[in-house]
Amino acid sequence: HPIVPITVAFGDGIGPEIMEATLKVLDAAGAKIAPEAIEIGEKVYLSGQTNGIQASSWESLRRTKVFLKAPITTPQGGGYKSLNVSMRKALGLYANIRPCISYAPFVKTKHPIMDLVIVRENEEDLYAGIEHRQTEDVYQCLKLITRPGCERIVRYAFEYAKQQNRKRVTCFVKDNIMKLTDGLFHQIFNDIAAEYPDIQHDSMIVDIGAARIADTPEDFDVLVMPNLYGDIISDIAAQIAGSVGMAGSANIGDQCAMFEAIHGSAPDISGKNIANPSALLHGAIQMLVHIGQNDIAEKIHHAWLATLEQGFHTADIYEEGRSKVLLGTAEFANAVIANL
Amino acid sequence: HPIVPITVAFGDGIGPEIMEATLKVLDAAGAKIAPEAIEIGEKVYLSGQTNGIQASSWESLRRTKVFLKAPITTPQGGGYKSLNVSMRKALGLYANIRPCISYAPFVKTKHPIMDLVIVRENEEDLYAGIEHRQTEDVYQCLKLITRPGCERIVRYAFEYAKQQNRKRVTCFVKDNIMKLTDGLFHQIFNDIAAEYPDIQHDSMIVDIGAARIADTPEDFDVLVMPNLYGDIISDIAAQIAGSVGMAGSANIGDQCAMFEAIHGSAPDISGKNIANPSALLHGAIQMLVHIGQNDIAEKIHHAWLATLEQGFHTADIYEEGRSKVLLGTAEFANAVIANL
Ligand SMILES: CC(C)[C@H](C(=O)O)[C@@H](O)C(=O)O
Ligand SMILES: CC(C)[C@H](C(=O)O)[C@@H](O)C(=O)O
Repeated sequence: HPIVPITVAFGDGIGPEIMEATLKVLDAAGAKIAPEAIEIGEKVYLSGQTNGIQASSWESLRRTKVFLKAPITTPQGGGYKSLNVSMRKALGLYANIRPCISYAPFVKTKHPIMDLVIVRENEEDLYAGIEHRQTEDVYQCLKLITRPGCERIVRYAFEYAKQQNRKRVTCFVKDNIMKLTDGLFHQIFNDIAAEYPDIQHDSMIVDIGAARIADTPEDFDVLVMPNLYGDIISDIAAQIAGSVGMAGSANIGDQCAMFEAIHGSAPDISGKNIANPSALLHGAIQMLVHIGQNDIAEKIHHAWLATLEQGFHTADIYEEGRSKVLLGTAEFANAVIANL
Repeated sequence: HPIVPITVAFGDGIGPEIMEATLKVLDAAGAKIAPEAIEIGEKVYLSGQTNGIQASSWESLRRTKVFLKAPITTPQGGGYKSLNVSMRKALGLYANIRPCISYAPFVKTKHPIMDLVIVRENEEDLYAGIEHRQTEDVYQCLKLITRPGCERIVRYAFEYAKQQNRKRVTCFVKDNIMKLTDGLFHQIFNDIAAEYPDIQHDSMIVDIGAARIADTPEDFDVLVMPNLYGDIISDIAAQIAGSVGMAGSANIGDQCAMFEAIHGSAPDISGKNIANPSALLHGAIQMLVHIGQNDIAEKIHHAWLATLEQGFHTADIYEEGRSKVLLGTAEFANAVIANL
């Protein structure tokens, strides 16, 4: 493989620890990447950049077009904007891909046979950032749903299902209430589904769908839905599969792509070398596939799985009996490297 | 007790069956009510009332001010409005109270020790019904959050917690993204919480909160949240407690109150005498408490619990080994009556 320049951000809270662990594994596995670090997040916000990022960092992102990002913290109050959301929008990252898989019996879960992927629309909906105070007492936020936005994400979901040999795509909407916005999403889902006769499709009202996912996640395959539902449903699915500390996510656009953990910066456990680096590592594995280094991605995935199977567990998934050795963040990375 | 006139609607799908079963139990228990039936739902929509209700029915509702309602169906397409939502708004039913309780070991659940109550705001948010097509390709729906709306529901939640001797109230919002609308809800939550020093309080971002509820519902007590989150979270909680077929809900306003099942009209199993009437029965029990017939409410609740314990189960909760006898809707009601 040729060496691919990528941009990396170490982020806030547990970010630096899990990024260091992740990059160490990538390096040991022979990933052909040239990481270029940028600083984003809390420190940048507090230095006066209300959006948490400097102009030079945008330059790096627009040049490398591949971004491995650790979680960041937005300071409380002060009218700071969410950089996560601004970056998704600025880089045109319209699709957020979140695989949620159980690793039973090696990791404790009440749902041992789940293997689903949430394809979340990533730019529209209540995340469009259109929010106003109308009067002293009345506030509003606009939920924005567009035809091109729906078409793009629904097509992405079916193409993804096709490439990954998945059998079914399920759509979650609330179009019994939001007949226009969610109605449009649903109608476009049905239209595009008709172009993929080999893939099954169905739709659920999001409340019932959420209940079904929480109860019998093994019944689902690929899911596609508007932004906010995808946010909520993917946290549920990741958590009941074992831990939000294990799920990575790919944010995909036509030009750029960003890879991250689905969890946050967990300031309460930062600096203690106890965080699980697996979610960011899974983001990195998705990144390696994206840049065509599938063999290295697979090698890392197998080494990681072997580490879990050996019972080398971080605190979030450690359980007396099931686990063999409690490892810190750095030591877990070393155990993965030993299995490469 | 004096006899209290109430309005009842038999609804669509499984509605008539579960309502008949419920009223039979109420009658046998000696509930002092005079039910007055109105027709709402599918037939009324299709007869040309696009809102699914006739003027005379509003008259009954405004007079009795107490409404026991079976699930209804809104016909597909045709621009029909959701009658459930219109009624909540027209009757000023701002608080939707949804207890979700596990009945393990008598009913199968992966979460045997949950006992939580969701207090859902019931008039605002994306349910305000303000939805537009801006252009051919752009649709929007308005999320509306007002100060009086937040104050009313948050205060209701704390008063409820106080009366029921509950220890903690948890708020779910997404104010890292919706800083104004959800930010207002969160701020009012904190302000009002300070008036109740004996009740603990905390807040979670709704995605993480949903994941925590789906994973460890036993950690929650009373929850309060905007309308749409409450819709999704209550279906999750009811389902993982055992079945959406068991949870009832009270819709409370300053003048009127409406009691119902949280599930829908389930047309696929209607007319077969197999639906579980428990959710509507729980709605009816909440109604009896509302009209001051607590003794009868308690009597019915104990008889119902005894029926579950005896292993008399409807199909949705029937399980080989755990259950003793599979009962139909009417037979389940008879079994409850035998335990009164
Ligand atoms: C941090 C936050 C802005 C973000 C979101 O809401 O999308 C997070 O919850 C996620 O799911 O990636
Ligand atoms: C039927 C529908 C309008 C309703 C809602 O969304 O509120 C239902 O899901 C509920 O939770 O009562």
